[in-house]
Amino acid sequence: MKTNLSLSEQTQQQRPVSWTTRRDEKARRMQSVEPWMKGPVLAQEKIVEALESVIASGDRIVMEGDNQKQADFLSRSLVQVNAKKIRDLHLIISSISRPEHLTLFELGIAKKVDFAFAGPQSLRVAQLLEDGVLEIGAIHTYVELYARLLVNLVPNVVLVCAEQADQEGNLFTGPNTEDTPVIVEAAAFHDAIVIVQVNQIVDKLPRVDIPASWVDIVVEADKPFAVEPLFTRDPRHITELQILTGMMVIRGVYERHQVQSLNHGIGFDTAAIELLLPTYGESLGLRGKICRHFALNPHPTLIPAIESGWVQSVHSFGSEVGMDDYIRARPDIFFNGRDGSLRSNRVLCQLAGQYAVDAFIGATLQMDGDANSSTVTTGRLAGFGGAPNMGHDPHGRRHSTPAWLDLKTNPSPNARGRKLVVQTLETFSKGGVPAFVETLDAVEVGKKAGMPITPIMIYGDDVSHVVTEEGIAYLYKTEGIEERRRALAAVAGISPVGLNAKPAETAELRRKGIVAYPEDIGVQRLQANRALLAARSMEDLVAWSGGLYQPPAKFRSW
Amino acid sequence: MKTNLSLSEQTQQQRPVSWTTRRDEKARRMQSVEPWMKGPVLAQEKIVEALESVIASGDRIVMEGDNQKQADFLSRSLVQVNAKKIRDLHLIISSISRPEHLTLFELGIAKKVDFAFAGPQSLRVAQLLEDGVLEIGAIHTYVELYARLLVNLVPNVVLVCAEQADQEGNLFTGPNTEDTPVIVEAAAFHDAIVIVQVNQIVDKLPRVDIPASWVDIVVEADKPFAVEPLFTRDPRHITELQILTGMMVIRGVYERHQVQSLNHGIGFDTAAIELLLPTYGESLGLRGKICRHFALNPHPTLIPAIESGWVQSVHSFGSEVGMDDYIRARPDIFFNGRDGSLRSNRVLCQLAGQYAVDAFIGATLQMDGDANSSTVTTGRLAGFGGAPNMGHDPHGRRHSTPAWLDLKTNPSPNARGRKLVVQTLETFSKGGVPAFVETLDAVEVGKKAGMPITPIMIYGDDVSHVVTEEGIAYLYKTEGIEERRRALAAVAGISPVGLNAKPAETAELRRKGIVAYPEDIGVQRLQANRALLAARSMEDLVAWSGGLYQPPAKFRSW
Repeated sequence: MKTNLSLSEQTQQQRPVSWTTRRDEKARRMQSVEPWMKGPVLAQEKIVEALESVIASGDRIVMEGDNQKQADFLSRSLVQVNAKKIRDLHLIISSISRPEHLTLFELGIAKKVDFAFAGPQSLRVAQLLEDGVLEIGAIHTYVELYARLLVNLVPNVVLVCAEQADQEGNLFTGPNTEDTPVIVEAAAFHDAIVIVQVNQIVDKLPRVDIPASWVDIVVEADKPFAVEPLFTRDPRHITELQILTGMMVIRGVYERHQVQSLNHGIGFDTAAIELLLPTYGESLGLRGKICRHFALNPHPTLIPAIESGWVQSVHSFGSEVGMDDYIRARPDIFFNGRDGSLRSNRVLCQLAGQYAVDAFIGATLQMDGDANSSTVTTGRLAGFGGAPNMGHDPHGRRHSTPAWLDLKTNPSPNARGRKLVVQTLETFSKGGVPAFVETLDAVEVGKKAGMPITPIMIYGDDVSHVVTEEGIAYLYKTEGIEERRRALAAVAGISPVGLNAKPAETAELRRKGIVAYPEDIGVQRLQANRALLAARSMEDLVAWSGGLYQPPAKFRSW
Repeated sequence: MKTNLSLSEQTQQQRPVSWTTRRDEKARRMQSVEPWMKGPVLAQEKIVEALESVIASGDRIVMEGDNQKQADFLSRSLVQVNAKKIRDLHLIISSISRPEHLTLFELGIAKKVDFAFAGPQSLRVAQLLEDGVLEIGAIHTYVELYARLLVNLVPNVVLVCAEQADQEGNLFTGPNTEDTPVIVEAAAFHDAIVIVQVNQIVDKLPRVDIPASWVDIVVEADKPFAVEPLFTRDPRHITELQILTGMMVIRGVYERHQVQSLNHGIGFDTAAIELLLPTYGESLGLRGKICRHFALNPHPTLIPAIESGWVQSVHSFGSEVGMDDYIRARPDIFFNGRDGSLRSNRVLCQLAGQYAVDAFIGATLQMDGDANSSTVTTGRLAGFGGAPNMGHDPHGRRHSTPAWLDLKTNPSPNARGRKLVVQTLETFSKGGVPAFVETLDAVEVGKKAGMPITPIMIYGDDVSHVVTEEGIAYLYKTEGIEERRRALAAVAGISPVGLNAKPAETAELRRKGIVAYPEDIGVQRLQANRALLAARSMEDLVAWSGGLYQPPAKFRSW
């Protein structure tokens, strides 16, 4: 270094004393649990002591609380550590789903949280925040939170779950993979400690999903990890308005734009569409022309469409309780391993949903006049989950498909196509509360929680279509904010937003094809009844699956 | 199925005859190579026959041709198959880098290609397309192409590379992981055949990166896989204009917006910035305040900033030739495994770059008056690589950082922040050709190649800042397309675009802070000389690394 000696000398003083602080600290901590381990396997009864030994106050801890599965043996154990010894943890958790996740804060074991979704616990999160018991770093989408594990939320310890481990510490995560691979990779490759609860330790795994080289501690849980059937909708509860909306989507969106590949958000609206494909869709001659490739969890309501030859492939974020045998019997459709069972993967399915599909469609609870929408309602900090990752036009996409090109309205040679982002909602929700509002509840909630921006789930400028029981607003075709607002008002019924609609303007929008009412696209309101559903009950779904689908107990009401 | 019997009966006829066609076909093909295998290990001399046995005409084949590493034993073997027997393959390849990739088309073994980048072969791709020898599905970004493997480009056979395998077929991909995990996962979990060339078969791997459960055939290559040092820039070639631009970026972008986490594209512009941090950046007191977390490959020019304590973490897409020992010695900074060596991963690093960083900065070759840019020039179909994934504002992001919020210009409660997308370019490229042009060459190239839209690399509406040797255009602050054009013209020198600038308008833009010239942000042009670089040669970089960095031969000119 002839040329910069003085600079180099000066720099010596800025250089860290050690480049291996994380590795050394991990070795020190692992040493302390050595007596309770046999290889990578920790004795179950030592879990609380082990957590007290490998976790230090102030640590960043990832707790696997996914959309569906929960490392609940580890979360139930973590609340038992000595709260005088372990304090002020920074909890990173994609879904705050279980009561003990928040008990950690009440006990002072944890202080700060970065998360993505808090559906079942959203009321309590808001309360603890107000009481100063809990501090929020930020609310993310799922994959955004994992991305930060690789940048500025590098963890010290991660607590995850798998179905089985072998004696060496190799893991079989089973059909419901979800987030385990990315959490473990972020930790294993930056000298964090990887602790895995497994349902069972076995001699030989059906397949290895995560290699032992990435795992530090395996512990057999007291019972199988908790998992929720979040993607199951009983067809019995699908209403005729949802069927009408579904028919409009099939004709006015999927057929119109030749949608081949798509993600369905969860809800009765999308369940209705899935159950209309083999009936209404078939009557329109659309099989093989639309809805061939899906990026979504294995919705039971998709079974009739699969059995009818509509669906060519399904890639999934996670599995769904009761669907495992059905999936195993349909390897041409699902992404199954050599052992026969599903491999899901949230990061890769999000990648598929973001860059490779024509359309996202999802229901929302509340929408303002600019088509901004949110599931945040007063007093609840529900978070975002994965919808925003699907519910936007990915500007990093460069390949064309018929649907993507069909949304290109600008004739400039420098214009690009667009992903379909379709939002469905009924103009009034249960109890007669308008779903279209002047101002989202989220604005007030965000202010009250001290958030730097409003917690909007899907931004209006990302939405291409809004479908209500009244009709379809083709927002992507509108020119300027005013026309956009008028188009939305035209399908907003007699809600506060809908009352802004003027009949003459609406007629003009229908003439221009910016708004379509059912009759404009050949959808007959009278046809919209439950006889049109390919399955009308859980029992029907089981029958369609040839008995392979096994609904969880709470759905077995027939 | 009481309710829908007739429908169900009708559906029976639409139902596929078999749900296991892919699995059965894989079993059949694997059977045919059984005689040449010992476990998962194929005898090297049988590779051509094996490829002829497991590949069928018309198959979709993924060839691992990454940005850096190449499964070249397999590509060299594939061109040797009997072209009468194997024809019309559909090749899926992220980077068309090697001559034999295109020989496949000349021989008729392959017919159609879906790819992301064709830098070294871009001229020949264009020629073969014109000659009708090759058909292009689409040109993608890297992760977009992988996403399609999970949706509508499901492969039949994938050909990838790794450093080592053990006798069971477990893989050590080594520091340069790049795309191997996602390609293998997409294939292994949809009954495609996974063939891996390895440099070496060993008894025990340093660590397992990909489990044997995901691998079908391992073959020891005749020589180690090819890998290019794409991210190495010799500081000797950094010019004073690049230093000036770098100073402006540090003051006018990074310091101004408090950029903490970022991705640097490759090029001398960003190399200059990296080498200015420990000198110019230090003199401004910015250490610890900006540029703490990086998502990028291990650029050798980042060594001085790391050694000076600027950099807290680096997550990488791949490794870089010669950097492995240095990385191994700096585990606090890089993402290394338990064995000590780097784990990189393009999909995860793209995730980090998309959702977790404040800024992307990259150089471009050509820009139009709307800030659209492309590296496509006449007669070449270069493709996109990864830049578009970094070079846009990710609408799926929901957390805030100071930089992200600082780009929020709309006071509405429903407005969001924005990622910094910074493009650098000199107003004239070598040979006096203007870099700012009225119309991108890409428009003509796209037309000629029959592409449905113009192959634009980064769209102007995604760009927040443009930095030239003249100054900075803060495009995100502009209101309306006209002001945007004026701001760009103000930094476009005497190029055709720059000649549209009017002095009075430019003065007003400077007053409003929409354009800044060096003197407006305290950057002294006279200070911009090579003495300011922390390293001025490869030798300097080696010295900074304490001898750990070992440049490839072609860079060892001292």
